[in-house]
Amino acid sequence: MGALGSGCLDDLEGGAKWEEEATDLLASEAERALSIEEAVKALLQGLGEDHEREGLRRTPHRVAEAFRGGTRGYKQKAKDIVQGALFPEAGLNPGVGHAGGVGGLVVVRDINLFSYCESCLLPFSIKCHVGYVPSGGRVVGLSKLSRVADVFARRFQDPKRLASEVCAALQYSINPAGVAVSLQCWHMKFSHLCDSNFTHSTISDMQSWGTVLASSRSGVFKEGKNSLWDDFTSLLKVSGAIIEGGDTNHSHVSSWCPSRSLEVPMSNGDCARNFKNEKTSSTTAVSQASMVAAVASILHSLGEDTSRKELLGTPYRYVQWLLNFKSYNWGLDLNSLDICKVSSCVLKDGNVDSKNEMKTELSIPFFSLCEHHLLPFHGVVHIGYLTKQEGIYIERSALQQMVHFFACKLQVQERLTRQIAEAVYSNLNDGVMVVVEAHHNCMISRGIEKVGSNTATIAALGQFSSDPNTKAFFLQAIASNATSGV
Amino acid sequence: MGALGSGCLDDLEGGAKWEEEATDLLASEAERALSIEEAVKALLQGLGEDHEREGLRRTPHRVAEAFRGGTRGYKQKAKDIVQGALFPEAGLNPGVGHAGGVGGLVVVRDINLFSYCESCLLPFSIKCHVGYVPSGGRVVGLSKLSRVADVFARRFQDPKRLASEVCAALQYSINPAGVAVSLQCWHMKFSHLCDSNFTHSTISDMQSWGTVLASSRSGVFKEGKNSLWDDFTSLLKVSGAIIEGGDTNHSHVSSWCPSRSLEVPMSNGDCARNFKNEKTSSTTAVSQASMVAAVASILHSLGEDTSRKELLGTPYRYVQWLLNFKSYNWGLDLNSLDICKVSSCVLKDGNVDSKNEMKTELSIPFFSLCEHHLLPFHGVVHIGYLTKQEGIYIERSALQQMVHFFACKLQVQERLTRQIAEAVYSNLNDGVMVVVEAHHNCMISRGIEKVGSNTATIAALGQFSSDPNTKAFFLQAIASNATSGV
Repeated sequence: MGALGSGCLDDLEGGAKWEEEATDLLASEAERALSIEEAVKALLQGLGEDHEREGLRRTPHRVAEAFRGGTRGYKQKAKDIVQGALFPEAGLNPGVGHAGGVGGLVVVRDINLFSYCESCLLPFSIKCHVGYVPSGGRVVGLSKLSRVADVFARRFQDPKRLASEVCAALQYSINPAGVAVSLQCWHMKFSHLCDSNFTHSTISDMQSWGTVLASSRSGVFKEGKNSLWDDFTSLLKVSGAIIEGGDTNHSHVSSWCPSRSLEVPMSNGDCARNFKNEKTSSTTAVSQASMVAAVASILHSLGEDTSRKELLGTPYRYVQWLLNFKSYNWGLDLNSLDICKVSSCVLKDGNVDSKNEMKTELSIPFFSLCEHHLLPFHGVVHIGYLTKQEGIYIERSALQQMVHFFACKLQVQERLTRQIAEAVYSNLNDGVMVVVEAHHNCMISRGIEKVGSNTATIAALGQFSSDPNTKAFFLQAIASNATSGV
Repeated sequence: MGALGSGCLDDLEGGAKWEEEATDLLASEAERALSIEEAVKALLQGLGEDHEREGLRRTPHRVAEAFRGGTRGYKQKAKDIVQGALFPEAGLNPGVGHAGGVGGLVVVRDINLFSYCESCLLPFSIKCHVGYVPSGGRVVGLSKLSRVADVFARRFQDPKRLASEVCAALQYSINPAGVAVSLQCWHMKFSHLCDSNFTHSTISDMQSWGTVLASSRSGVFKEGKNSLWDDFTSLLKVSGAIIEGGDTNHSHVSSWCPSRSLEVPMSNGDCARNFKNEKTSSTTAVSQASMVAAVASILHSLGEDTSRKELLGTPYRYVQWLLNFKSYNWGLDLNSLDICKVSSCVLKDGNVDSKNEMKTELSIPFFSLCEHHLLPFHGVVHIGYLTKQEGIYIERSALQQMVHFFACKLQVQERLTRQIAEAVYSNLNDGVMVVVEAHHNCMISRGIEKVGSNTATIAALGQFSSDPNTKAFFLQAIASNATSGV
């Protein structure tokens, strides 16, 4: 049963206790949803946004829906899912071997899941592999292994506990000879956010992400020579999965979430005081304290126990993440201070270039926050520009800073693309083209869950908008860069 | 608007007409579901199955749910989905270029969808790419492009019409400057089923599948020099998509579904007579005619117009597909006639082999039908065996026939694995191990939609079950084979 004794199973099975407590305070689902929406409005205000403006008007509703969908696992029970999907299946004579309903290993590999990190509330992605050895002449419908894993992914989690809970719940609900669970998890490293120098170079590159492997096992998978665990890992290797060794069961992964490096006030209640002690204006401090209180109320509305130790600093950490995207009155005047800062280091007469040569800076990475869902989107920006002035070009670092400036806001990809193009064009107005490629968490972790889908947007100005050949030449440069894997 | 005039949009928008007609005959959703379940029972009877046996007892319910979920698009309207997700977004000054809410191309790539083939009712998989050019200073929420595509995928379709309908519906509901849709579609080639000689060698290999590219475009994507269509295709190439040229809009793909090569009776009503004219017993003919009638009733219950020309032969074709999996009293005695036929050509004293050498036959392809959902699962079988008798081995073709024999039934993967192992063991009883790797349509095209997930099962007999090293050696052989890509 892994780290969880059987005494934990009542908690496991639906977090019923938390739900009861929450029910005392909030009469209905609708009231809970409204309470989350109010809290999201408070967060938007803390970010300096007008939650009544068109793009944000329904954001509280969408965020509430995303949180409720993303934590629906608190209301689900593995037993209910497995019930009615246990099928009698003959097994071999035990003297002969193992197969079928008695002793034959069954593994479902490469199940894509999403969960919310209990340390920072950001989604993390999971490739989940589940194996079990049937017993008692019964097999379970294959899709149920995936569904049960999803029940526990749809809660606030960390990888180790997720593996343990899925393992324990399958052992409890199916009662097989044993269960093995192996997870590969990816968490975005948002320390990047602050220095704009992180290095992933294609939109699919997850190498710079925090990765962790976690596993859990029960019954025959824990036995002596571990031959069944070895069979399980062999079958995962066949399908190309990277998996953890057999001995790291139940250890804690402290370095997993990057927000863990933040120093957190002793308790959520201390936040206001802590903020006030900082050298910020007292208005800001109060605002941040109310944001932390808003996040705590969201957790409570979702049926979570905000006093459990793993969640103690979570509201504070989530607010710190959000504040990376605080609005600074951007967009009012594209030639204002912020842009000038960028363009002042932009123009440099180093190399002598021939007239109207196209310059390209490809795969500039970025992180941004979708203003419709308060979920991250991230990817790369490709910038091409023309200049008739000799010796003029823009340093990559200046473009990186500019991309970072426009990305670190509540954004939509279409606007981000246009703003970058306009900012470059305001300095070099012969022609500019910007292509942004991004993965949107709101497309893959909630609702439609279209894993692998991604979005490309184009802005074309000056000669790029009037001459198809110039545009085609730049698009070709991007394609060559993508296939060369640089 | 592509092939669809605006007059078609009422039909497009929810197939409301069909639904009204159907409503006259069937009062409620529950009644429709029950009617489908009854029809599925008739199909199971036609396949010679006892629909009361444990594994099949809830199959009619599951199949009805899968069909209703898979065709939910008939009840959805693109307008409803897009409504509330149109956001004001500034665009550039038209003299300067194109970007943002006016004229900047937006593309969502690599959306995984599933649809049902209107010719044979089998699911086919789709990689969908959608682009549009905003106008009027409004952009649509990115996820809506995927959701609208899903509305039309969740109907009985063929690729060309799917592309046209998605394009027309987006044009109609968003009213942008233009819409571009490009689809890559994969349909299983079940001609394979009948000769057991098809050649895909890994479970992910879709090269032997029927593939078709389809596209549709409206507005600015149809204009003169086609520069916007070229931009769209360039952006797809960047992400590695294979796409169709610009000129094949709206042509019909007649060779797409392999069942199209079947000669179909003039009308569904003629089926009974047609079956009777065949040289089959009249009992069989009547049974097949009632199966065809059952499928027609399922289509009707789902709100389809069974008289539309694309569906005329569909019930007949679907029944022909199902009959590939008809039960022949298998499993009563594993040493009976059918197995002997296999084993008679199995033993052959050709090459002289050393004692207890392990023989392996890897990646034998198969197709089977999941008895819980009446949906296909397919993959590869790996067989390893030991023999103390010198010069004894089993020809690959004999193993292929045996795999084919056990797969061409209503099956579950666990049982298939065990039956193959037992059949080999009954002839060579020193040790046998079977590993089956499969993709299950029931896991990816309905309900949980876990694209990419796959299942591996093991049966180990004799020395393979008692000696971990022997088992590990065989698993290693499979892994080496997988990584070498053979």
